[in-house]
Amino acid sequence: MSLLKQNLFNDCYNEINGSIGSKSNDTENKPNNETEPFSPYQLSYLKHHRYSLDLPGIVQSKLGAGPQPQVGDAGPKLVVVMVGLPARGKSYITKKLKRYLTWLQYETKVFNVGNLRRHTSINNNNNNPPGSTSHSFSFFDPHNEQAKQLREHLAMECLDELIDWLKKGGRIGIHDATNSSITRRTRIMKRIQRESSFKILFIESICTDKRVLEKNIALKLSGPDYKNMDPEEALNDFRKRIANYEKAYETIGEQEELENIQYCKLINVGKKVIAHNIQGFLSGQCIFYLMNLNLVDRRIWITRHGESTDNTLGRIGGDSSLSERGRKFAACLTKFIKMQKDLFRQKQLEKYREELKEEKKRYLNFSSSEPEPPERNFLVWTSMLKRTIETVEKFDSKEFDVMHIRFLNEIYAGACEEMTYQQIEEEYPEEYAARKSNKLYYRYPGMGESYLDVIHRVNPLIIELERMTDNILIVTHRVVLRIVLAYFSDVEKEKVPHMDVPLHTVYCLQPKAYGTELLKWVWDENEDMFFQE
Amino acid sequence: MSLLKQNLFNDCYNEINGSIGSKSNDTENKPNNETEPFSPYQLSYLKHHRYSLDLPGIVQSKLGAGPQPQVGDAGPKLVVVMVGLPARGKSYITKKLKRYLTWLQYETKVFNVGNLRRHTSINNNNNNPPGSTSHSFSFFDPHNEQAKQLREHLAMECLDELIDWLKKGGRIGIHDATNSSITRRTRIMKRIQRESSFKILFIESICTDKRVLEKNIALKLSGPDYKNMDPEEALNDFRKRIANYEKAYETIGEQEELENIQYCKLINVGKKVIAHNIQGFLSGQCIFYLMNLNLVDRRIWITRHGESTDNTLGRIGGDSSLSERGRKFAACLTKFIKMQKDLFRQKQLEKYREELKEEKKRYLNFSSSEPEPPERNFLVWTSMLKRTIETVEKFDSKEFDVMHIRFLNEIYAGACEEMTYQQIEEEYPEEYAARKSNKLYYRYPGMGESYLDVIHRVNPLIIELERMTDNILIVTHRVVLRIVLAYFSDVEKEKVPHMDVPLHTVYCLQPKAYGTELLKWVWDENEDMFFQE
Repeated sequence: MSLLKQNLFNDCYNEINGSIGSKSNDTENKPNNETEPFSPYQLSYLKHHRYSLDLPGIVQSKLGAGPQPQVGDAGPKLVVVMVGLPARGKSYITKKLKRYLTWLQYETKVFNVGNLRRHTSINNNNNNPPGSTSHSFSFFDPHNEQAKQLREHLAMECLDELIDWLKKGGRIGIHDATNSSITRRTRIMKRIQRESSFKILFIESICTDKRVLEKNIALKLSGPDYKNMDPEEALNDFRKRIANYEKAYETIGEQEELENIQYCKLINVGKKVIAHNIQGFLSGQCIFYLMNLNLVDRRIWITRHGESTDNTLGRIGGDSSLSERGRKFAACLTKFIKMQKDLFRQKQLEKYREELKEEKKRYLNFSSSEPEPPERNFLVWTSMLKRTIETVEKFDSKEFDVMHIRFLNEIYAGACEEMTYQQIEEEYPEEYAARKSNKLYYRYPGMGESYLDVIHRVNPLIIELERMTDNILIVTHRVVLRIVLAYFSDVEKEKVPHMDVPLHTVYCLQPKAYGTELLKWVWDENEDMFFQE
Repeated sequence: MSLLKQNLFNDCYNEINGSIGSKSNDTENKPNNETEPFSPYQLSYLKHHRYSLDLPGIVQSKLGAGPQPQVGDAGPKLVVVMVGLPARGKSYITKKLKRYLTWLQYETKVFNVGNLRRHTSINNNNNNPPGSTSHSFSFFDPHNEQAKQLREHLAMECLDELIDWLKKGGRIGIHDATNSSITRRTRIMKRIQRESSFKILFIESICTDKRVLEKNIALKLSGPDYKNMDPEEALNDFRKRIANYEKAYETIGEQEELENIQYCKLINVGKKVIAHNIQGFLSGQCIFYLMNLNLVDRRIWITRHGESTDNTLGRIGGDSSLSERGRKFAACLTKFIKMQKDLFRQKQLEKYREELKEEKKRYLNFSSSEPEPPERNFLVWTSMLKRTIETVEKFDSKEFDVMHIRFLNEIYAGACEEMTYQQIEEEYPEEYAARKSNKLYYRYPGMGESYLDVIHRVNPLIIELERMTDNILIVTHRVVLRIVLAYFSDVEKEKVPHMDVPLHTVYCLQPKAYGTELLKWVWDENEDMFFQE
C-alpha cells in the first residue's frame, strides 16, 4: 500500500477514533510495511462493537434480560501494562486498580512478573555472590546477558498467562513488571496484537520525590525478596538493583506516541498526569480513578444511622425517624466523633512539633514564631433520609461541615418499601425467592434497585473519598455501608450482600500505601460509650 | 520566615493537599519572601470548607432543607484562565465548558478579552495601515509597546469584571484570552490571590495538527474581526497576528509547576492531556469532561418511546406497554433509522472516494485495490422500561448494537407513579402546587426524583456521548429527553422543564466545532413516514 493511501486511510480511521488531531505529519519516516499497515489498536477497534458504556449489571444488551447481567463478551478485553522502575509505586497502583475494577464487577487479575521470577528456580543458571538471594542485584545488570534473557522470558511467560486468563473469561489483565525498555514494550504489544479483541493501556509510574521513594524502598525491604536478609545488606542490594534498572530505563515518549499507543503517566502519586490517546470507556474510567488518588494520612469514619422506628418494627426502606434508642446512640456518636477529631488534631500537632524539633536540631537560625499547621477539615455526610439526618442533628456546624447527599440513600426497595421480610415472603413469594438466590443481582420490583445499581450510584462517592484529604464521617444505611466497606476492604463480590454490619457500630478506615486499615468501634448502650473491638 | 521552616510548613500543607509527592527539592532557589510565604492556592484552601463534592440541588447542607438548594456560598469559586495561541480552539473549549457547567447548575460565565478589545475604542492610540481594521496584526506585535500596554490593560480589566461577577454570586468565571506569557499569567494569579476564596485552573490549548489549525483559522475569518474584509487580506492579516503572538509565546512548563499551579494542557483536541496539581472536585470534573471531547462527524438521534397505554390514559410514570399506535411508530422508526444509517454510510464512502480522487490527482503511483473504510458502529440505547424496549424490538441486532440502560429511565414520580396530573392535584394538592411553582427543583414524594436528580443521573451519559465516535439512537422519556436536548442546545435552566418534546418526534444532533446542529423529524401517522421540520 502506498504511503499516501495509508495516510488517507488513516485519516478515516483517525476520524473514527475521535483523534482528528492525531495524524502525525511525519508518516514519511515510518516503515512502509505491507502486512501491518495499521497499529493493532486500529484493527482491534474496527472489528469490535461494545466499545462504549459498559457497566456490568447496569447496562443490559438482551431484550427483556433477567436479573443476571450478560457475562463474557461484553466489551473488549483490556491489558494494562505497567511501566516503571522498582519502588515507584507500581504495585500500589495495580492493587488499587484491581480492587476498584473488581468492585465495579469487572473480572480483573494482576500478573506479577516478580512473583513468577521468585517461583521459578533459576539458581543453576545464575552466579550469585555467596549469601545473597537467587535474585540479587547482579540478576538485574543489563550487561548480564544470561539473566537478561531469562528476565525477558519470564515477562513474556507472564504475559502468556495473562492472555490465557483473558481468553477464558477474564476482563482486565494487569501485567505488573518494570517493562522499562521500548524493545520490551514493543514485544509485549506485538504479542497482544495477535488477539484482535484486546486493547492495551500502558500505565507508567514515575516518582521524583525523594521522600516518597525512600518510603517505597523501606516497604520493599519487608517484601519477599529480602525477608531473611540483613536490613543494611538488603538496602544495599536493592539500591544496586534500582541502579541496574536505571541504566536501561526508557520512559514512554515521543517515539511511542507516534505509534499511537494508549498510555497514562502518573508522576508523584498523581501530582502530574499525562494521558495519551485514551479511547475506550474503560480506559477513561481507569485514568479518572488513578488521577484522584492520594496518600494523605486521614480517617474515614462510617456507620449506619441510629435505630429507627421502622427498625424496631423490622420494616425495610421507608423514611421513619429515630427511636428513643437511636437518639441515644446519636448523642453518644456526636461526642465520640468530636473526641476523635480532637485526638487527630492533637496527634497532628505532636507530629508537627517533633518535626520542628528535628529541624531545630539541624539548623540554629530557626525562629519559632510561626503559626501551627491548620486543622484538617472534618466533613459529615448523610443520606437524605430522616434517620441519618437526625443521627447527626447535634453536630456543631462550626466544627463539622454537614451535608446530606441523595446517593447515600438506602437501596430502594420499590414495591417492597416499608414491608417486613416476612410480608415480602407472603405477598411476593417469587420475588423473595429470586432475591434469596442471587442477592447481588436481584432488583426490587416497582422501580426498585439492585446491589449493582447501588454500586454504580455510590461510585462517584468512592472517587471523591479517594480524591479528598479531609477527615469524614459518613452516616448511611446497611446496603450502602456494605458496598463502601467492600470497596475499601476488597471483599469478594459474592460475599458483599451477606456482610455483617450491625446498627450502632462505627468503622474507621485509614487508607495506607499497602491497603486500608479497618478499625471497629461498638456502642455499649449501658455504658453509653464506644469500645474498640 | 526561614526557608527551612517554610519547607516544614509546606510539608504539612502538602500533606493536606494530598500532594505528598509535590515537594520540589530546590526550595533553596526560591525567593524567600517574608510577606508571601505560600502560594495563593494554599492560603485560599486553608481558609475554606466546602471544597469537596458539591452538586447543586443534589447535595444539601442545611438540615431538612426544602426543594430549593442552597445558593451562593456553596464551594469555592473557580477562575478558569485560558492559555493558547489564536486559532487553537480556546473558544471551542470555553463554550463547551460553559455549556456543561451551566447544565450541571453552576453559574458560569465567559469573559472574552477579544470582545472587550473590540468594544473599546482605541483608534486614536493606534497607527494602523489604511484599510485595515482597528485590530490588525500590528496591534499584536510584541515590539509595539503602546499596543502591548493596552492589551495588558484590557486583559486585566476583563479579569476585574470576572472577579466582580464572581463576588456578586457567580460560581465559575472563564478568562478567555491568549494569556501567552509567564509574566501575564503571574499578574493574573496575583490579582486573583487577593480574593482568598477563589481557586485558579489554567487550561492551555495546544494544536500541532495542521489540518485542525487550518480549519480553526477558516472559522476565525468568518468572525467579528474580519467580517467585512477581503478574505485573502483577512487570512494574511490573521497569519501575521498569529506570528506576532508566536514570538512571545511561552507554554506552561516547569517554572510554573514549581509554583504549584493547577493546570491542564489539552493537545490536539484531547489526543494528549497533561494535568498538574488538580485539587478540587470541580477542577477534576472539568478535566474529566475536557479529556473526553472529540470532533468526529457523527449523528446522535434521540426520541421518546412510542405511545404507551399509560399515555393514552394520561398517566405518568409506570411501566406499561406500547399502544397500537405506539407499535406503528416503532415499526416506522426502525425503517427510518436503518435508512439514515445507510445514508450516513453512503456519504462516508462518497467522501472517501472524493479524497481518494484528490490523492490520485496529486500522486500517480496510486493503486486503488485498498479496502474501503469501515462503517461506523450504530448503537441503540433505551431505558429499562417496557415502552422504550418495545420501541426498538425490531431493530436488527446484527446491524445495531442494542442496549438497555437504567439511567435512561423516566424521572421517578415516587408516590405519584401511574397517576394522572388531575389525580395528583386532587390527592396531593400541596405537591401539585409545589411542583408548579418550581418544576426544576421539585422532587416527587416517596423517594421520587427531581429534574436535578435526573441531570445528575444522566451526567455519565453526557460524558459518554461526548467521548464516543459511534452513531447512536437513544430512545428515552420526556424528562430525560428534555435534559439531554437542554445540554446539547444550551437551553436556559428555567426553560428546561417546559420544553416542548412531543411523542413521535425524532431529533438529530450533529456536534460541530461551533456548537450542535439540531434537526427535527416528525412522524406523519397517516403517511406512516417521517418528515423533516
